[in-house]
This record gives sequence, C-alpha cells and structure tokens, in this order.
Amino acid sequence: MDLKVRKLKNIELNRLSIDEFKSQHKWPIVIILDDVRSMNNVGSVFRTSDCLGIGNVYLCGITGTPPHREIHKTSLGAENSLNWEYHSDIEMLINQLKTENFSIAALEQTDKSIYIQDYEPSDKPLALIIGNEIDGVSDKALKLCDHILEIPQFGTKHSFNVAVSAGIAIWELIKKMRPA
Amino acid sequence: MDLKVRKLKNIELNRLSIDEFKSQHKWPIVIILDDVRSMNNVGSVFRTSDCLGIGNVYLCGITGTPPHREIHKTSLGAENSLNWEYHSDIEMLINQLKTENFSIAALEQTDKSIYIQDYEPSDKPLALIIGNEIDGVSDKALKLCDHILEIPQFGTKHSFNVAVSAGIAIWELIKKMRPA
Repeated sequence: MDLKVRKLKNIELNRLSIDEFKSQHKWPIVIILDDVRSMNNVGSVFRTSDCLGIGNVYLCGITGTPPHREIHKTSLGAENSLNWEYHSDIEMLINQLKTENFSIAALEQTDKSIYIQDYEPSDKPLALIIGNEIDGVSDKALKLCDHILEIPQFGTKHSFNVAVSAGIAIWELIKKMRPA
Repeated sequence: MDLKVRKLKNIELNRLSIDEFKSQHKWPIVIILDDVRSMNNVGSVFRTSDCLGIGNVYLCGITGTPPHREIHKTSLGAENSLNWEYHSDIEMLINQLKTENFSIAALEQTDKSIYIQDYEPSDKPLALIIGNEIDGVSDKALKLCDHILEIPQFGTKHSFNVAVSAGIAIWELIKKMRPA
C-alpha cells in the first residue's frame, strides 16, 4: 500500500447531523426487536441502524427502551437520530404495519426459512423482526410473517450474537435495495 | 406464513463438533485483531468467526487473549473450536503471512479505501485486519496492506461497533468466495 495512506478525519466522513439524518433518504426497511433482553444489544442495533441508514426501530415486549445508561453506552446516542417506538404487543404492531403495505420478515432458523442471500425484495417496504437472545423470534410473530430469512452458518455454535446478526442482515438487505 | 412454521431444534441445526469444525473446509480468510481493547469484542469476533466458518484468528498488541471470563461469556466457547495465536508485533505477523502467500486487507476508512462490496478476491488467501475501537487499524499495519476495505455508512455516527463491522465484513467476503 502507498506509504501515504491516511485515515480519514472525522470532518471528512460526511457524518450527517441529526436533522440531516432525519430528512435524508432511508432504505425501505424498519427493524422490530421482539423481546430482546440485553440493553447492549438494543443499543448496538440502534448504532448499526444509524450507520446503515435505517430510520425506524420498534421495541416490543420485554425489550428495554431509552433513556437507559446501557443502551446509550453502546448506541453512542443513535436513539436521538432514529425514530423509535415501544409496542407492548408485537402482533398488533405487525398487523398495523401490514395495513401500511409492509412485507414482514423474521430472521430465524425454521423449517420454512430461506437463506437471506436468496431473498428477493418486492416493491413493498420490509419490516425485519430480530428475536430474543435465547428463544429467537416468538412463535406468535413468526406466524404473521411473509418471509423467514436465515443467515447460513458453518460452525459449532449456530448462534450469532443478536447485534451481529442484525448487522449482517440489514447489510445484506440494503445491498439488494441499492440502485444497480 | 404457514401456521405450522416451526423453529429448528438444536439437533436439527447441523452443529459441528469441535473436531468436525477443525477438520472441515474453511473459507480462505484469517482475522487479525489489531489492539482491540474490549474483551466483549474479542469474544464476539470469535463467536462470529465460528458461525461463519473462519478457522484462524490472530490477536495482536494489546488485544486480550483466552482464557478470560469476559471473552468466554461472549464467545460461547468458540475459542476452543478456532485456532488462535497471540502476536505482540503485528508487523512481524503481517510479513510472515505475506511469505505464506496471503493478501493483506484492513477494514478502515482512509483516503485509499474501496467499498468492500467492490472488492474482488484474488486466488490468494486473505488476512483481514480489524482495528482498535477508537483509533482503528494502526498506521504501521495500514502501510503493509494490499487493500483497504470500507463498509459504506449513511448515518450520523460513521462508527460501527468492532464486532458488528467484523461480522458484516466477513459475511461480505465469504459471499464472494462461495462457489456460484
């Protein structure tokens, strides 16, 4: 590599202000957290969503909500740039999003899953459900899904961290939505 | 979705035993952690590497090493399925890997970066360097790289979590290496 390679300064990263972020184009994806127990995971999903240009995160069931010290520590404040809402009842939220023309997808290993790289987005916006650290996406939510997406795994664990799997899934989905 | 959708049981996930993992095909990628401070991040990179079928992780500089309670908590024990080595001097490690025919890539935002989705792997195996939480990949390591890869960002932070960025990068790279 060129000896003069230089890391970019903060001012060169084209970081958006919160107002710019709220008004800019977003990918047609919203994230639903279904009983995510760890505040670190909630904060990390906020941070990743901000980085990848996701505008809306829904927090359901036992999922913790801002303001919370642990969420803030891992989100780096992304809860202020994103729109987030708490819904105690995930089924009501999913049915509401369906009336707003959303396709509903869960990230889960089931007998009806397809590999996420094989998913072809429709022209509908997509709501992606990420589940609990131990139990995954709830059965009541799975039954309302149009698609169940799975990240292929090759190891001894078959269990990604929630925040890492959300990052991989959002990345893979927005790549399919980027203009060619 | 079919009302009979059913989450897979552990026995159906085709989890590999540690011996099976060590002997199976791995993607031609190794991971180098360059002064990663957080034990949670080290453990999470181990876990993600296991899940995605990466066989070797190199821990350099101030990066913590197993056995460590915090690493184990997030790795779920993946330090036992992977091969890992500690190298105090990352430059010596990189030069050693070059003699073993590796291409060297860093994940970093620099004036010489290309977007990771535009990277075309060669027929050489790849060593991917992931840097410190605050300072990123060290200048001394960057100078030895053949490629610098960047995940495009669209938000107010321009700063993925280390473990999330490693997950996205490894996923994106192995997809390019999968047989068509």
